[in-house]
Amino acid sequence: MKNGIKVFAPATVSNVCCGFDILGFAIHGVGDEIIGKLSDRKGLRITKITGDQGRLPLEVEKNTAGLAAQRLLEHLGEAEIGIDIEIRKKMPFGSGLGSSAASAVAGAMLINEMFNQPLEKRALMEFAMEGEKLASGSYHCDNVAPSLLGGLIMCRDSETFDVHRIYTPPGLYATVVHPNIEILTKDARNILSNEVSLKGMIEQSGNLASLVLGMMNSDLDLIKKSLHDAVIEPQRAKLIPHFYDVKEAAMNAGALGCSISGSGPSIFALSPNSKIAEEVGERFKATFSKNNISNKVFVSEINNDGAVLI
Amino acid sequence: MKNGIKVFAPATVSNVCCGFDILGFAIHGVGDEIIGKLSDRKGLRITKITGDQGRLPLEVEKNTAGLAAQRLLEHLGEAEIGIDIEIRKKMPFGSGLGSSAASAVAGAMLINEMFNQPLEKRALMEFAMEGEKLASGSYHCDNVAPSLLGGLIMCRDSETFDVHRIYTPPGLYATVVHPNIEILTKDARNILSNEVSLKGMIEQSGNLASLVLGMMNSDLDLIKKSLHDAVIEPQRAKLIPHFYDVKEAAMNAGALGCSISGSGPSIFALSPNSKIAEEVGERFKATFSKNNISNKVFVSEINNDGAVLI
Repeated sequence: MKNGIKVFAPATVSNVCCGFDILGFAIHGVGDEIIGKLSDRKGLRITKITGDQGRLPLEVEKNTAGLAAQRLLEHLGEAEIGIDIEIRKKMPFGSGLGSSAASAVAGAMLINEMFNQPLEKRALMEFAMEGEKLASGSYHCDNVAPSLLGGLIMCRDSETFDVHRIYTPPGLYATVVHPNIEILTKDARNILSNEVSLKGMIEQSGNLASLVLGMMNSDLDLIKKSLHDAVIEPQRAKLIPHFYDVKEAAMNAGALGCSISGSGPSIFALSPNSKIAEEVGERFKATFSKNNISNKVFVSEINNDGAVLI
Repeated sequence: MKNGIKVFAPATVSNVCCGFDILGFAIHGVGDEIIGKLSDRKGLRITKITGDQGRLPLEVEKNTAGLAAQRLLEHLGEAEIGIDIEIRKKMPFGSGLGSSAASAVAGAMLINEMFNQPLEKRALMEFAMEGEKLASGSYHCDNVAPSLLGGLIMCRDSETFDVHRIYTPPGLYATVVHPNIEILTKDARNILSNEVSLKGMIEQSGNLASLVLGMMNSDLDLIKKSLHDAVIEPQRAKLIPHFYDVKEAAMNAGALGCSISGSGPSIFALSPNSKIAEEVGERFKATFSKNNISNKVFVSEINNDGAVLI
C-alpha cells in the first residue's frame, strides 16, 4: 500500500479526422493530477478540487474521478478503506480535450497505484469508463483509452474495450487551440445527422484505412492525404466561429491535417515536427485573437506514456 | 517489340467485408489470358475470344480488354501498328470476381509487354480503368488495382488511382465459391440504400481500421474480429440463396471471415492456412449442392504477383 502518491492522466484529442468515435491520441503537459492519502475515516472522500472554478461535485458517486476510483475499490474488495483524494484539474473542461476521461483515468490509476498495481494498466479501462459514462453519457472509449495507455489508439469496439495502439512516426507533433467559447457535448451530438451518405462513408473509410497505413509506414504524404473528415467536420464546423480560417492558417503553416478535437470547441493540428507545430500554434492564436476570441494553445509531441505515477 | 506473347491477369475479390469499394485482393489460377501477335494489317484487332460462351464483343472499342489495349496504344502513339489479340477467359463472368477488371488489366498489360514495358506497371492502372468503366460503369479500382498489382490493395481514392498495398500474413488463403446463379451488378448496386446509419459507419470504420492493423501485424485474432460487414452484406445477402448457411458452414470450418465477393453471387472466405481453406471449400460446395445449386470452388493463397507475362 502506497500513501501520499500523485498520478497524472493526460488530455486527449479524439475524433481524429476520419476516425470519428474511433481514433484518439494523448498529449503532454495538460491533464488531471490526483493525490491520494490514507485516512482514518472509512471510505473514499474527495477533500479538495482545484482548477475547476467550483464546477465539479465533491460527492464521490457524482464525480468522474471519484466514481472510477470507487468502482475499482469495490472490485478490489477494499471499499471500506479510508482514502482522501485531491483533484487538480490542469486542463480546461468542456473543451473537447477529454477532461472527464482524464479525471476518470486518473481516479482508477490512483487506486491501482496505491494498491501496488493489482491490475494491469489495460484492465483499468472498464473502471475509468464508468466515470466517463457518468460525465458524458458516452460509451466510446476514444478519450479514456489514449489517456490511460498513451499514443494513438484505435477503438474497434468500445463495449468490449477492444482497443489497439497504432504506431506513429517519431517526431509527430500536435498543436491544440482551445478558444474560450462553450459547446455542450450534447449539442455537438444533436447537430449530427443519424445518417451518412454511402459515398461519404466510402470516402471516410478510404481515408481511415490510409491513415492507419500511413502512420504504421511513417508515410507523411499518405498521412496528409488521409487526414480529412468528409462526414462530421462539415456538420460541426458551424459551432466554432472562424473554424475554416483557423484550419486554413494551420494548413498554410505546413500542418499535415487540422480538424475539431472531440466535439469541440478545441481544434487540433498534426505536424511533422516541432517547428511547424509551434508555427501552427502561432497562427491558431493569431487567428482567434484578431477575432477577439481569447484562446490557449498547447504544443506537444504525441504522448506515448498515457497515465503515469508522478 | 515482342511478338507472340501471352499475359495473365488474375481474378479478384473486392468489397472485402468492411472494405466496401476500398479493399480487394487477387487470387491465383483464375483470370484472363491474352495473346498478342504482330499483324500486317493496321490497328488493333480481336481475332478470337474463348471461354465467354459468345457473350463478349469482338469490336475493340466495345470490348473491355480491347479498349484498355487501344487506349494504351494511343498513349504510346502506336495506334497504327497492326496487332491481333486472342482473349481466353479462364474465369466465370458476372460472378463478382472482377472478370471485366481482369480483361482490362490483361489488355493494358499485353501492350506494355509487347513494347518492352515503356510504362511502369502501376501506370497501367488508368488504361485498365478505361476498360473497367466501359464494362461496369464503375469508377472504383478495387478490382483493377489488385488484378494488376497483386496482393491486398486498399484504394484510398479511385479517381486519382491512389492505391496502397497492405501486407498480408504469410499463409493467408482465400476460398471462393461461384454458385451458378446470376446477379447483375446494376441490381446489386440498386438494392443498396444511399444512406448508412452513423452507428453503422462507426462500426464499419472500426473494423476496417482494425483489419488493416491486423493484416500488417499478422494478428489473426484481430483479423477475425474485424472481418465483418455491418453495412452492405445485410442488404445484399438476400440476392444469394442460402448465403447465411454457406457463411455459417465456412465459419464452422475455421474461416477467419466470409462475405460476398464484389457484388456477388460469388462468396469468399479467408482462412489462416490451406488446410482450413480446403475444408471451407468442401463445405461451400456441399451447402450449395444439397440445395441443388451447381457451383465451382477455387482455393488460392493471396496472389501477390498480379498481372504477369507468361
